[in-house]
Amino acid sequence: MLGRKLVERLARDGALAGEGISHAVLADVIEARSTAARSFDVQVTVADLAERGVARELLDGLPDVIFHLAAVVSGEAEVDFDKGYRANLDGTRLLLDAIRAVGSGYRPRLIFTSSIAVFGPPYPEAIADDHGTTPLTSYGTQKAIAELLLSDYTRRGFLDGVAIRLPTICVRPGEPNLAASSFFSSIIREPLNGREAVLPVPDSIRHWFASPRAAVGFLCRAAEIDGNALQGRRCLTMPGVSATVADEIEALSRAAGEDAVRLIRREPDERTMQIVRTWPGRFSTKRAHALGFRAEASFDEIVGVYVEDELGGRIEAWT
Amino acid sequence: MLGRKLVERLARDGALAGEGISHAVLADVIEARSTAARSFDVQVTVADLAERGVARELLDGLPDVIFHLAAVVSGEAEVDFDKGYRANLDGTRLLLDAIRAVGSGYRPRLIFTSSIAVFGPPYPEAIADDHGTTPLTSYGTQKAIAELLLSDYTRRGFLDGVAIRLPTICVRPGEPNLAASSFFSSIIREPLNGREAVLPVPDSIRHWFASPRAAVGFLCRAAEIDGNALQGRRCLTMPGVSATVADEIEALSRAAGEDAVRLIRREPDERTMQIVRTWPGRFSTKRAHALGFRAEASFDEIVGVYVEDELGGRIEAWT
Repeated sequence: MLGRKLVERLARDGALAGEGISHAVLADVIEARSTAARSFDVQVTVADLAERGVARELLDGLPDVIFHLAAVVSGEAEVDFDKGYRANLDGTRLLLDAIRAVGSGYRPRLIFTSSIAVFGPPYPEAIADDHGTTPLTSYGTQKAIAELLLSDYTRRGFLDGVAIRLPTICVRPGEPNLAASSFFSSIIREPLNGREAVLPVPDSIRHWFASPRAAVGFLCRAAEIDGNALQGRRCLTMPGVSATVADEIEALSRAAGEDAVRLIRREPDERTMQIVRTWPGRFSTKRAHALGFRAEASFDEIVGVYVEDELGGRIEAWT
Repeated sequence: MLGRKLVERLARDGALAGEGISHAVLADVIEARSTAARSFDVQVTVADLAERGVARELLDGLPDVIFHLAAVVSGEAEVDFDKGYRANLDGTRLLLDAIRAVGSGYRPRLIFTSSIAVFGPPYPEAIADDHGTTPLTSYGTQKAIAELLLSDYTRRGFLDGVAIRLPTICVRPGEPNLAASSFFSSIIREPLNGREAVLPVPDSIRHWFASPRAAVGFLCRAAEIDGNALQGRRCLTMPGVSATVADEIEALSRAAGEDAVRLIRREPDERTMQIVRTWPGRFSTKRAHALGFRAEASFDEIVGVYVEDELGGRIEAWT
């Protein structure tokens, strides 16, 4: 989803980090939907980064900028231990090693989408930029390891890495996925489309959000910042909106009325609760802010982005 | 060195964590010196954990307690990137996976020697137990990754891991090694044996120390603590003595006089300085203390342990 939206933006802009784009390669384990770009070639390839040799082939054109978004999501990495480590750890390491193996001064900007799942409780009121990574899921562990590798490979001069810890992306378009966070989007998206949504956790749960549009903005910004400005600290927690489920529901009500809110069915799920209750609710993201990363200012704005980008700017009256 | 001293203590005690020892397997890439134990068998084996299948063989006897001390040291891991990752990351992961593969409820206590090299500047006055891991060496990166893996494998129920972050062990017996920290021991050990030592850094450098005897005590304590008391936080910074090079030299003077101090030759080395200046100087190790881990109370005590354990309790008059 994020990859597709990133390519759409790049196709629109025709440039990244102040340079014209000449060529883009989209690699995924399933065939990516191609996006026509006026000003550059787009090549779509089906590839599994966790297979030895695949990363080397993907680097054939020696790209200046690499966005590494590939991941087995949190819920799935928890259910299938081997699959998560293979994709999220081995796949990332093979990519880093393939970049290093090119040599001859090749040192691309590598943007890695990490996650706030690298953090674990106990939390302070607002989690600061230097807070330690003590993940409580296999997914968060894999992301934290990838951050360490990216930092070390960057320090050694093998590449120029930036890891951005994404908030939970909300409102995600499309269908619910296996991420334990999926309901945060469903309870907005489904009602806005006249469908029922299931809410498995209490209204008091607080979490950290940014829209898909903001996330694409983070990716583009991460491509253009000066690596020296990072002073060796290559992992950045991204800005976001701190909101409870109740805040989400109020924003939905303001956007679409109480009829929409009535489509949310409360169905407590202990397994989801156990995962979600360990998640962080609020960050202080001074470093990212100083580096020019920007998210929405409220959950109303987040709902507004979904309505603009996915519903053509208007909510259908379905009642 | 630490492995040998640990086995000597186990041979002396005949027990660990309140249980009699029936059998010990010592595995190393070079042949370990065997230690006669009155009350249990000691089997010495040459094995490279980073080779696939080796860990499984080492687990044949389904040990209740595993001490994983194997490591390529800091200086060497910085010079030989591949060797460090192979031994410190791949070797550890293969061991964890081999334990997991046994299955059938096998869940041994795994004690992993991590290092304060997992930390990087900027530091507070005293580094607290929840300080984040932002290593500035490949060695520290590999240790931090191993900690994350150990924590996740423990959380998933595959093993019962405890990672102890060792202070710099001082005074190390024997010859200088490739660790960048080697001089901290040399400037005490060599003069106490009537030999010259080279000091590559200024007297003002502060660092965190414990004796080999204290380190063996940490290992034994880590084998006996109740895993539940760790509340999911499986990585513990070990207590130690915060001392400057000047403090070390004063302790040497008190133990052996100014003639010994005159054997220290100041020979500034920029490469060593660059590594050492990023090292931490002081910790607040409340968790470890509450869990019963104990180090020396002063650098004089650390010198005293060397004299007792390595010099038979007395310093030869060599002048």
